[in-house]
Amino acid sequence: MRFKNRITEMLGVEYPIVQAPMGWIARAQLASAVSNAGGLGIIETSSGELDAVREEIGKMRQLTTKPFGVNIAQAFVRDPNIVQFVIDQGVKFVTTSAGDPTKYCRALKEAGLTVFHVVPTLKAALKAVEAGVDGLVVEGAEGGGFKNPQPVSTMVLLPLVREKTNVPIIAAGGITDGRTMAAAFALGAEGVQMGTRMVSAAESPVHQNWKNAIVAAEETDTVFLNQFSRPALRALKTQKTARLERELVPNYQGPPVMAEFARAKDLYFGGDMEASIALSGQVAGRIDSVKPVKQIIRETVDEFFATVGGLAATYA
Amino acid sequence: MRFKNRITEMLGVEYPIVQAPMGWIARAQLASAVSNAGGLGIIETSSGELDAVREEIGKMRQLTTKPFGVNIAQAFVRDPNIVQFVIDQGVKFVTTSAGDPTKYCRALKEAGLTVFHVVPTLKAALKAVEAGVDGLVVEGAEGGGFKNPQPVSTMVLLPLVREKTNVPIIAAGGITDGRTMAAAFALGAEGVQMGTRMVSAAESPVHQNWKNAIVAAEETDTVFLNQFSRPALRALKTQKTARLERELVPNYQGPPVMAEFARAKDLYFGGDMEASIALSGQVAGRIDSVKPVKQIIRETVDEFFATVGGLAATYA
Repeated sequence: MRFKNRITEMLGVEYPIVQAPMGWIARAQLASAVSNAGGLGIIETSSGELDAVREEIGKMRQLTTKPFGVNIAQAFVRDPNIVQFVIDQGVKFVTTSAGDPTKYCRALKEAGLTVFHVVPTLKAALKAVEAGVDGLVVEGAEGGGFKNPQPVSTMVLLPLVREKTNVPIIAAGGITDGRTMAAAFALGAEGVQMGTRMVSAAESPVHQNWKNAIVAAEETDTVFLNQFSRPALRALKTQKTARLERELVPNYQGPPVMAEFARAKDLYFGGDMEASIALSGQVAGRIDSVKPVKQIIRETVDEFFATVGGLAATYA
Repeated sequence: MRFKNRITEMLGVEYPIVQAPMGWIARAQLASAVSNAGGLGIIETSSGELDAVREEIGKMRQLTTKPFGVNIAQAFVRDPNIVQFVIDQGVKFVTTSAGDPTKYCRALKEAGLTVFHVVPTLKAALKAVEAGVDGLVVEGAEGGGFKNPQPVSTMVLLPLVREKTNVPIIAAGGITDGRTMAAAFALGAEGVQMGTRMVSAAESPVHQNWKNAIVAAEETDTVFLNQFSRPALRALKTQKTARLERELVPNYQGPPVMAEFARAKDLYFGGDMEASIALSGQVAGRIDSVKPVKQIIRETVDEFFATVGGLAATYA
């Protein structure tokens, strides 16, 4: 059983399974495990720590001979040289997100990179296609992280974008196994991206407390914060985020939500779950154990083919 | 191409496509069109107008010889005789919703009815199975109408409930065509329920202004209201609901959201979109025209088989 579609061809991977570019987390230890398992690891730049990112990309070349990508989270990387920085690293695949798709697309394409833009709405998708992207990451609002303040779920957004565009789509938001991967493919995707599943992986560098919180979470244990401002975000419910959910409403007068990330590393790597915000998708409620990346990808692929085969046997 | 699974067997229908039980709307004109097209029409009781409902069930027997069902929306029908009322109508299939599944399940089952309970969380699903229901309607938060205040999308909730229970599942929330039906089946459903798609149908009794508003809506044009109280609900964005979205936050002091339904009929049948709240799912953004029910169901079935066939050809 193997995959052969536009995403595997463009990315040069065995399996069209991409790891999401979580700030500070999507670095060589995790990303190389994903690439070595046949998926596509992605290195983040949203931490803004470009020196560290350069070092991580260097480590990737030691840890894997397989393809990997870089993400440019436009709203979070203010360095005007980010495009040249990415080009200089010699990677072939980049996702751009959280910003205007016309801003970097041409320069990246002219340098020979394959460019996918992350979109939370049809309007954003059409704008990205117009800008000349090679493909889209279509991100439903059940996913974790920074979100459009007008949330639309994968079940609605993905087929809508599929109907109105022709470029290959990587589905994000709610994807955590082979069943959800098969559903995303039924909706028109040719690849999937996993965030929370990878945060919880054995090779993820986050503190065990965060992984344990994902494993313990029910499907109702995320909050959607700051919907009346920007950026909105989805995170695990903690004492802090439950309080913020009730405070970040119209006429809120306190400090901006981004101030909560000042102590992000105390949560991410120190394990103090109340120090900051643990970005996470609703799939936390479906994750019952910490697994190595290789196992996650193998089980996903096996279940994908079993699901498609089962549907075909019953209904085709 | 035909369907044969637990849902078609239990419901006695050709296609496992169920019409949602929208208050005032899910009456004989719409429900008979669904049943005659091979799906399952459902008559509502959430309007509380049991005399009218009795008359509608009488009309159903004139308009169709096919099976149909009744919904008991427990939070909205306070009549203690509702169970006997439903049994007396001679229907064989009932969905219960918005309440404790143990309350009516035994009496309905003892009277020979097939009982499905509508659930928005895994916890509710497990409780319903424990109560002895025959199956579940698993309802993702992208759907319209009254919702759990802790929203979980279909892509997350449906496979979670599938993994943890064995009863047949009808998927609701985000389902509007064959692609989404195939995705729901990949996630473990054996049937689907459509609400907004049926509100927009030619045979739907709502005013043309509401249908036009669904056709005009983008996928971001719904609001999720009253999340910090009960009942939460999803509706089309209008001047009224955009205002309510910003008002119905913690420490809200105004009249309860249900007071907005005092003039529901002026919206539903009079076409004054600001008179009340037009309950609607995110799929409004995917609906581009008013179609007869028969066409909706035929296109859904054709696209379902085409989608499954396409997946099988590429990946099985």
